[in-house]
Amino acid sequence: MALKDLEVFERNETGIQTALSILKQRFGEQFADSHALREQHSHTMTYIPKQLPDGVVFARSTEEVRDIVMVCAEHGVPIIPFGTGTSLEGGVNAPAGGISVDLTQMDQIISVNSEDLDAVVQPGVTREALNEYLRDTGLFFPIDPGANASLGGMAATRASGTNAVRYGTMRENVINLTVVMPDGSIVKTANRARKSSSGYDLTKLMVGSEGTLGIITELTVRLFGIPEAISAGVCSFPTVEDACNATILAMQTGIPMARIELLDAEMVRVINKYANLSYPETPLLMLEFHGSPDGVKEQSELFGEIVKDCGGGDFEWVTKTEDRNKLWKARHEAYWAIKSNFTVKVGIATDVCVPISRLADCVRETEEDIRNAGLYGPIVGHVGDGNFHSTLMVDPDDVEEVARAEAVIERMVMRALAMDGTCTGEHGVGQGKRKFARIEHGVGSDVMLAIKKAIDPNNIMNPGKLIGPA
Amino acid sequence: MALKDLEVFERNETGIQTALSILKQRFGEQFADSHALREQHSHTMTYIPKQLPDGVVFARSTEEVRDIVMVCAEHGVPIIPFGTGTSLEGGVNAPAGGISVDLTQMDQIISVNSEDLDAVVQPGVTREALNEYLRDTGLFFPIDPGANASLGGMAATRASGTNAVRYGTMRENVINLTVVMPDGSIVKTANRARKSSSGYDLTKLMVGSEGTLGIITELTVRLFGIPEAISAGVCSFPTVEDACNATILAMQTGIPMARIELLDAEMVRVINKYANLSYPETPLLMLEFHGSPDGVKEQSELFGEIVKDCGGGDFEWVTKTEDRNKLWKARHEAYWAIKSNFTVKVGIATDVCVPISRLADCVRETEEDIRNAGLYGPIVGHVGDGNFHSTLMVDPDDVEEVARAEAVIERMVMRALAMDGTCTGEHGVGQGKRKFARIEHGVGSDVMLAIKKAIDPNNIMNPGKLIGPA
Repeated sequence: MALKDLEVFERNETGIQTALSILKQRFGEQFADSHALREQHSHTMTYIPKQLPDGVVFARSTEEVRDIVMVCAEHGVPIIPFGTGTSLEGGVNAPAGGISVDLTQMDQIISVNSEDLDAVVQPGVTREALNEYLRDTGLFFPIDPGANASLGGMAATRASGTNAVRYGTMRENVINLTVVMPDGSIVKTANRARKSSSGYDLTKLMVGSEGTLGIITELTVRLFGIPEAISAGVCSFPTVEDACNATILAMQTGIPMARIELLDAEMVRVINKYANLSYPETPLLMLEFHGSPDGVKEQSELFGEIVKDCGGGDFEWVTKTEDRNKLWKARHEAYWAIKSNFTVKVGIATDVCVPISRLADCVRETEEDIRNAGLYGPIVGHVGDGNFHSTLMVDPDDVEEVARAEAVIERMVMRALAMDGTCTGEHGVGQGKRKFARIEHGVGSDVMLAIKKAIDPNNIMNPGKLIGPA
Repeated sequence: MALKDLEVFERNETGIQTALSILKQRFGEQFADSHALREQHSHTMTYIPKQLPDGVVFARSTEEVRDIVMVCAEHGVPIIPFGTGTSLEGGVNAPAGGISVDLTQMDQIISVNSEDLDAVVQPGVTREALNEYLRDTGLFFPIDPGANASLGGMAATRASGTNAVRYGTMRENVINLTVVMPDGSIVKTANRARKSSSGYDLTKLMVGSEGTLGIITELTVRLFGIPEAISAGVCSFPTVEDACNATILAMQTGIPMARIELLDAEMVRVINKYANLSYPETPLLMLEFHGSPDGVKEQSELFGEIVKDCGGGDFEWVTKTEDRNKLWKARHEAYWAIKSNFTVKVGIATDVCVPISRLADCVRETEEDIRNAGLYGPIVGHVGDGNFHSTLMVDPDDVEEVARAEAVIERMVMRALAMDGTCTGEHGVGQGKRKFARIEHGVGSDVMLAIKKAIDPNNIMNPGKLIGPA
């Protein structure tokens, strides 16, 4: 298999029709092929055009997933796993058709092991459903990418979000997976021990593999005790650089911030308007501290001193739960806040991640580039991780404008790579970042390709995603 | 390649002689083949018999490692990477001969990026050398497996140790690797960004691969701020179960303990004698707290309350730095403390790791089993991780005694696996745990084998380790 074989290939029409007929027979009402449903199953929250699967099967167990995979494997038909459809990079598109395996009905929480601080769940459980279930246990699952995504999808895409700076990403929080492999075999990647030095780390190989190596049908995830005290606050800075410097110092000091989010001046303007807030329209940090009451107090006082040293304004406390929820709701709805100012235009959400020492440069140069390109694209960032996003607004029918946005994204990626960063911190590769991932990984791409070929020799698992030509 | 092909194979005598002659010519004084040196390079700190490599090359750069690999690849000769030789499971043995690549001269610290809290180092840098270098920066590298191992070796074996409960293992603390692959290509597995969702996680695949997929020639590791305050203490418990329950409660409460070590009653007796201490000879927890002065105080007070609830004795503070060092020195020298009571007998150090909820059962049943087998083997454990060790003392010439010890280890592993644990928490698979890893991973072993075959089709990288028949 050469790289070009991973390119979008011809539809295997005979195979697809055979598989559809077998699956329809085998799965009855769990099978569907209406246009509306197929369209929903290629949903991507961006401008990337939809490429519909030929049929959708709603799987209810690991064994059913295995049966679907066996049918598709036998007939050489692409398989696209589907969680909640919140991919930003075309993760569930079907460039050569095939079968979408919908895992939303696999939504059982199998066990919560409070002594071990873990939970075993099916892949269709969403992060909100898990936290709702955990409500009375004093435990919570921290990873929060904004969308109420499914845990299977979050694992498959190595999702993270606002509080990864404290709790890590899905990489750190998935302990064990059950995966249906492309040949139908069922693999348990690990066990519930907190650590192991036994064998290759199959769990971490599967986390972030975007469905290209197998389908996750069960997960064990880490849980954390709900902090005794939570406090949040905001602080304005004259420049992005000052805000980044405060972040760097806070990280160096070891303040265990649960969230530290940067909004550029334009993003603050948008959020003020959308959420009826009145922050100074300069770069803003939104923070959250978790711990004991004394611990939280100490953390925030320490941070307050750092802010002063970095030229920041007063640190404004947000202590009431409802005000805190309002704050984070505004942050999470950044995309919709931006979108609310446009009718025709849609957003191309993109992200990169760099070593934190380079973050200020990367954000400032990106802001300038967006402005120089005549585009509109506010910036938000999970700055504790060196990860930031821009949402570039384009008219999808304006070919020239889309091309300008794509050029900005390409320069943003090249800037991040030149700073020893990555082409995507948390959005994933999917279709949109495939050519950049190839550049980023260089010879490493050949190793990834060798692994892909060894595990999925017929390239039936989510083809056209993650790995591909430069 | 079937599993049996990974078994110890015939020596490729012609290839080995050719490679030796080329490498001798190419590397001059960096090449050595004296018996003493070859014996040192098969050193394993256990009873596993030495299997000597045919020659040793002291590599000084990534390019030199590549050159060695290219010669060995061309002539089908095994390559065994060598760090400090502190493997407990035969990790540097050469069952079919071959070339030991000694990386100790690659001992440069390339950069310390204090803003990014990371350091780029060559693989021969030891953890103590790195921390010595960092002394004036306010930063430190936390992973401490006891031995002053090389960072390359620690990454290759996914090492951890006493403070993994707070800072994670090498899995969490290696950010990026440069690896010479079996075909001589040089792969950078990632970059210095704190997180990424771009492509398969090659870093985590290489961490713990025990030299079977390539040779690590550069690492980026995470650093942490030296805590403002450190306090330590010990606490005795009537039973192992009580100590485990205190540990579970402390973990659930979210106390960020830096170390929490269990010693069984016999281990306390041994340490008391060896280090001239006088702890009550019942199960003992040794703890360390890191944080701000107030934070550490709060953590330890919280822990004190938990101890009371769990029937523990008084929490005895160890505040002076020299007393704290004495405490941890005693813990780290557990093996030598045990060994000091024996002349002929040597220790078989073994470990397993289970979900923490099962730890008390696993330790108690293992203690009973050791006693019933008529063996001597005190137990120590990194209990916050559910990981514990026993050192079974045997006369290596007493075949029957060694067999009894091996049977105890087999039952210990099976007990851990039945509790959804792993056959090794931190010692690695090497030669000693290969058959158990096969049982642990089941179908997953086939996936590992497929990866091994894809990356090292001629099985030249550290053959006979990690992966093999049941």
